[in-house]
Amino acid sequence: MEIILAKRAGFCFGVKRATQMAFEAAEKGGETYSLGPIIHSPQVVNRLEEMGVTVLKSLDDLASGTIIIRSHGVTFEELEEAVRKQLEVVDATCPFVKKAQENVQSLSAAGYDVVVVGDADHPEVQGIVSFAKGKVYVVGSGDEAARLPKMKKVGIVAQTTQSFENLKLVVLECLLKGGEIRVFNTICDATSVRQQEAMTLAREVDCMIVIGGYNSANTKRLAEVCAEFQPRTHHIETAHEIDPAWFEGVNRVGVTAGASTPKWLIDEVIERVRDFDCTKTT
Amino acid sequence: MEIILAKRAGFCFGVKRATQMAFEAAEKGGETYSLGPIIHSPQVVNRLEEMGVTVLKSLDDLASGTIIIRSHGVTFEELEEAVRKQLEVVDATCPFVKKAQENVQSLSAAGYDVVVVGDADHPEVQGIVSFAKGKVYVVGSGDEAARLPKMKKVGIVAQTTQSFENLKLVVLECLLKGGEIRVFNTICDATSVRQQEAMTLAREVDCMIVIGGYNSANTKRLAEVCAEFQPRTHHIETAHEIDPAWFEGVNRVGVTAGASTPKWLIDEVIERVRDFDCTKTT
Repeated sequence: MEIILAKRAGFCFGVKRATQMAFEAAEKGGETYSLGPIIHSPQVVNRLEEMGVTVLKSLDDLASGTIIIRSHGVTFEELEEAVRKQLEVVDATCPFVKKAQENVQSLSAAGYDVVVVGDADHPEVQGIVSFAKGKVYVVGSGDEAARLPKMKKVGIVAQTTQSFENLKLVVLECLLKGGEIRVFNTICDATSVRQQEAMTLAREVDCMIVIGGYNSANTKRLAEVCAEFQPRTHHIETAHEIDPAWFEGVNRVGVTAGASTPKWLIDEVIERVRDFDCTKTT
Repeated sequence: MEIILAKRAGFCFGVKRATQMAFEAAEKGGETYSLGPIIHSPQVVNRLEEMGVTVLKSLDDLASGTIIIRSHGVTFEELEEAVRKQLEVVDATCPFVKKAQENVQSLSAAGYDVVVVGDADHPEVQGIVSFAKGKVYVVGSGDEAARLPKMKKVGIVAQTTQSFENLKLVVLECLLKGGEIRVFNTICDATSVRQQEAMTLAREVDCMIVIGGYNSANTKRLAEVCAEFQPRTHHIETAHEIDPAWFEGVNRVGVTAGASTPKWLIDEVIERVRDFDCTKTT
């Protein structure tokens, strides 16, 4: 049985950077916290917790220590609170997310009504939105953008993992809403490149394994796009979930992983798939 | 024979304003000139010439007098020259064109590469373009926009008479060209409203007459869109061109006119069509 690992499986630039910063902070010791999970990988978060990094839901009860800002970023108010409390801030916000936050802040200050293309429930979007001081809307599609009110000046940014197609649809609708529109294309193409590669791979194999947190939006989407081309697609978090029955009559297994999936989890999966290889000669 | 005049036939806001300003300047007397034809109507230009307004191709040989700036606007350099020569300037530039010029000027000053959606040969576009101090490109279509180089910051404006569809196609291409795009929708919808009305009318009649200068782009386009729905469409400048043969077997005649066509020319056409009415009882 052949196991093919997608070229862009696992950590993207922002996640790799955030994880490194978190582990470095953990190694330094002292009271160390992260505001929300540092990345959407329960396994990485557990490792950090073992090293003494406590995940907090808010800064309310924190008076001192080091606070790590997760890759998806936090809200403007949370950052302000950390500064006010004189906490030591390790800002692991993905630089692409940071850029989107800064764009919203400057658009808003310049009098634009801001439109964020993305998922309103996603922490990245909630962070980005909080940097607007005036009117701000989150739209998930062109149809939602069509329902926006008329605006004089419209500023547009996107959640970094949005599809370009979606941004295009929203921009076209906003062209009808205002005399001026200003778009910052804040999409990071790592997501689409990963998806493209995974789709190609899914077509060529008999079984596809997608590794990543169940709370990771990009991993869920990755599993969805693979399933379109390969019905035998399985989304797992760790190697323990693998069922040997998946490989009956299978010659080629494809493996990919979301942007928050560490290399060690991918390695463990490949190892385990190899163990279950029924075509293997002993 | 029924003669139906389109609701929006003839002068648009900018042309009406420019013509009024020109006739007022002519009535004042003194050395009065216009830089290029004040509007794209040879008949209006002739009337003004009879009143002493001389059409100039450039300001080179002019040392004094009043200069009327046509509705399509002139170049930044020409305006500067008029000011330097201390001519009396009657600026009849259409306020919508003026806005596009100002947008280009501010975009260029703010470091944007500027893209003007329009016809590079049109005097309005040549004027607008001249307000850019940095890089500026004129594109007539999405395909042309696709061939633009990569840019960091793209500023987009449109010739006021462009179709919204064309602006959309260019915006989408430019989204792929740069990290930031800023669009001023400088399209004046008088053109599209006029076209829509004319198309509806062309469908309902047996013969369509479109009145306007042969040098008027919007009249030519108006005749084209009418011809799509009514093969018996005729583009004329004046009533003298009407051929009675056009009305054989015709029950309903539709009449529309370009944005530079004065009311008196429309009235003359309607009068003459009435004269040629073969269904008329004497």
